[in-house]
Amino acid sequence: MKDIKIIAFDADDTLWVNETYFLEVEEKFCELLKDYLPKDEVSKELFKTEIENIKIYGYGVKAYILSMIEALTRITKNKAEQGLVNKVIDLGKELLNKPVELIDGVEEVLKALYNKYILILATKGDLLDQENKLKKSGLGKYFRHVEIMSEKKKENYENLIKKINCDPKNFLMVGNSPKSDILPVIELGGNAIHIPFKTTWAHEELSDKDDVDFLKVKSISHILEFLE
Amino acid sequence: MKDIKIIAFDADDTLWVNETYFLEVEEKFCELLKDYLPKDEVSKELFKTEIENIKIYGYGVKAYILSMIEALTRITKNKAEQGLVNKVIDLGKELLNKPVELIDGVEEVLKALYNKYILILATKGDLLDQENKLKKSGLGKYFRHVEIMSEKKKENYENLIKKINCDPKNFLMVGNSPKSDILPVIELGGNAIHIPFKTTWAHEELSDKDDVDFLKVKSISHILEFLE
Repeated sequence: MKDIKIIAFDADDTLWVNETYFLEVEEKFCELLKDYLPKDEVSKELFKTEIENIKIYGYGVKAYILSMIEALTRITKNKAEQGLVNKVIDLGKELLNKPVELIDGVEEVLKALYNKYILILATKGDLLDQENKLKKSGLGKYFRHVEIMSEKKKENYENLIKKINCDPKNFLMVGNSPKSDILPVIELGGNAIHIPFKTTWAHEELSDKDDVDFLKVKSISHILEFLE
Repeated sequence: MKDIKIIAFDADDTLWVNETYFLEVEEKFCELLKDYLPKDEVSKELFKTEIENIKIYGYGVKAYILSMIEALTRITKNKAEQGLVNKVIDLGKELLNKPVELIDGVEEVLKALYNKYILILATKGDLLDQENKLKKSGLGKYFRHVEIMSEKKKENYENLIKKINCDPKNFLMVGNSPKSDILPVIELGGNAIHIPFKTTWAHEELSDKDDVDFLKVKSISHILEFLE
């Protein structure tokens, strides 16, 4: 990769573990409702509710808690004991209070790159939650700029690249979601490296028609080979 | 006011109506719970829950919905019919779908200033909700930069001023909340104009010890006298 000046990193499931924690909570949510509906169907109902709510709530944990509560009232046909709602709120707060677990190799990679490139963080989700996670991660010192986006689509990347005074050909995005981190950046004429995480939220998966070429590496440490 | 180069405007209750809508929803929330507790005590319980949750949820409508649900389960001692939870969620979604009503004089003021100063928007709350309101307002074209902050405190203004390459003495903040818009900016050595809105959320009110001097005007049109 040539001419890269600015490298933007996605945060959740690229720098630190995230989806794993959501899946743990989903597991507990299904367990709470097992007398009403089998696990798979609870998951399906929750996912449907989440997707319907994205346009109004956006991404992040607060939206997730609200969607769990909404799915719960629908699944139980308003007949659940109220205590269940409290349990769901507690699950959500648990998620917000999780420690930040860095993915292997992350700090070494940032250390190796931050004297040679301008590094920025480009993520989506709840503003406060993402800021808190960045603080807990101890990685703040490596990033010249932090951008928390409401949605990672082409138009928003375009604004970001303009804001940081960068030409798309000098911009590299590194992340785990083809849909949010890779495709929109490539469409803009930028560069992207995909590092799959062990699990991907169904909403972030690609459909067949999004069939473009991009560089995929197995772990974050491998990006150094292409950059040094 | 001399040497002003950049003017930052708060959004909610400075450019458009906001607190009024929250108060309408609070009224309806109290109505839903009137069989359990008198109105004033419902309001008090809700406010207490909101304040406790700020550190984990931050500001904005999603945090407000979650706090209403939590207050509801506490007030009804988990004995309310589930339908109430749905009604609260609907109240919250109603809030997110409200039209944006500009405060008198706003557009004229922005039009008069935006060729002479760099105008930016500096607000807090939900990322997506604030972006949607800005879109609905039609005011986006006046702002060179939009900053949605998790909290409007000194440290965050310091970062903002650094990011936009401004000296505090060339920076003016205009807003309705002394606590969030005025005090932290004055502390930094910046300038601020306070335009009170007809109602102020109790959390944004000043305590006696925050007794500093600042310019207060009756309506946004009045700021032009100090700037032209």
